[in-house]
Amino acid sequence: MVTATLIDNIWATRKSDKLNGLKLMLAKINGGTKDGEVIVVCDVIGAGIGDRVIIATGSAARRMLEDDLIPIDAAVIGIIDESCESV
Amino acid sequence: MVTATLIDNIWATRKSDKLNGLKLMLAKINGGTKDGEVIVVCDVIGAGIGDRVIIATGSAARRMLEDDLIPIDAAVIGIIDESCESV
Amino acid sequence: MVTATLIDNIWATRKSDKLNGLKLMLAKINGGTKDGEVIVVCDVIGAGIGDRVIIATGSAARRMLEDDLIPIDAAVIGIIDESCESV
Amino acid sequence: MVTATLIDNIWATRKSDKLNGLKLMLAKINGGTKDGEVIVVCDVIGAGIGDRVIIATGSAARRMLEDDLIPIDAAVIGIIDESCESV
Amino acid sequence: MVTATLIDNIWATRKSDKLNGLKLMLAKINGGTKDGEVIVVCDVIGAGIGDRVIIATGSAARRMLEDDLIPIDAAVIGIIDESCESV
Repeated sequence: MVTATLIDNIWATRKSDKLNGLKLMLAKINGGTKDGEVIVVCDVIGAGIGDRVIIATGSAARRMLEDDLIPIDAAVIGIIDESCESV
Repeated sequence: MVTATLIDNIWATRKSDKLNGLKLMLAKINGGTKDGEVIVVCDVIGAGIGDRVIIATGSAARRMLEDDLIPIDAAVIGIIDESCESV
Repeated sequence: MVTATLIDNIWATRKSDKLNGLKLMLAKINGGTKDGEVIVVCDVIGAGIGDRVIIATGSAARRMLEDDLIPIDAAVIGIIDESCESV
Repeated sequence: MVTATLIDNIWATRKSDKLNGLKLMLAKINGGTKDGEVIVVCDVIGAGIGDRVIIATGSAARRMLEDDLIPIDAAVIGIIDESCESV
Repeated sequence: MVTATLIDNIWATRKSDKLNGLKLMLAKINGGTKDGEVIVVCDVIGAGIGDRVIIATGSAARRMLEDDLIPIDAAVIGIIDESCESV
């Protein structure tokens, strides 16, 4: 998984029906060789802009949705505690 | 997922029978460390050249086609609203 | 998917039995941040050295072989038409 | 797989229920083009901070947990022996 | 797939039970943007240090082991013939 900061929502009115009702957000990856890379992630645990989060990618992302048929490859799996300083 | 701009169609007359009838397009990734990288994506939601889109990769792409046997690893899952400025 | 040019065959006499009879080729990726990267791909549609091709990676590659038990992670899915100039 | 050094724990109180009880750690990748990249990994074999470990990513990570429904994409699969000097 | 040269064995006494008896080796990737990157691979076809090999990654690696439950994401699938000069 990677750590990232959620920086904004992203809106797509025209999209797969399977994505209806899902919240998509922009996340900026923190640290490492991908530092600053912005990806689109799905959130189902109530994360918000500014939160530092842990993101799972690939088939693992669909495990967060408990529906293997949704075309998603990145999802927030946890919000990093504020007291966690080494991230 | 990543955001990208569709820049052209791509044509392959000789290809897998499973790809018949599928629209393949060239997409240029926006922002991050992959900025400017061009990939080939499959579109089934009517996106066109110039559209900013969200692209899912890996096994997630086949979920867009609702057919897990098609040899595709990247697909447009949504067209980003024009009012969305932070992408 | 990515676009690449096939640059040579590659031979491995000692290999998995599951690869017997499969044609493996070297492909040089075109454009983007991976420009010039050489990977090994499997071809089952009769592509040849010099052809510009579309390559699918990951589990999608095995869909080209119609056998999910073959240990392959990259395959040619189409040969790009010569008239296609933007690749 | 990649080799990495575990550098810290990471805490996420708000997270997927499926992650309850799992230990997540920060790992810094050693060597290669990803040298210094920090990722989040799951550990179930009792590794600790400072240990050099082997990390599997993607669907392989879930094989360590013996539960394919957990949204994890990286896991420690072994602790590298101290006598191993070429890593 | 990628081509690499096997540079050493790697030993992990504390590891997943599922890895018992499997040979893990360090492989240095040849050419392209990942040139010099060192990864850990599983070998079941008798490759040795110094051999140039073809490596499959992701779920394809588990096809080499014929056991989808082993937490491995990279495996040697073939040893490149010495007469093969373009690698």
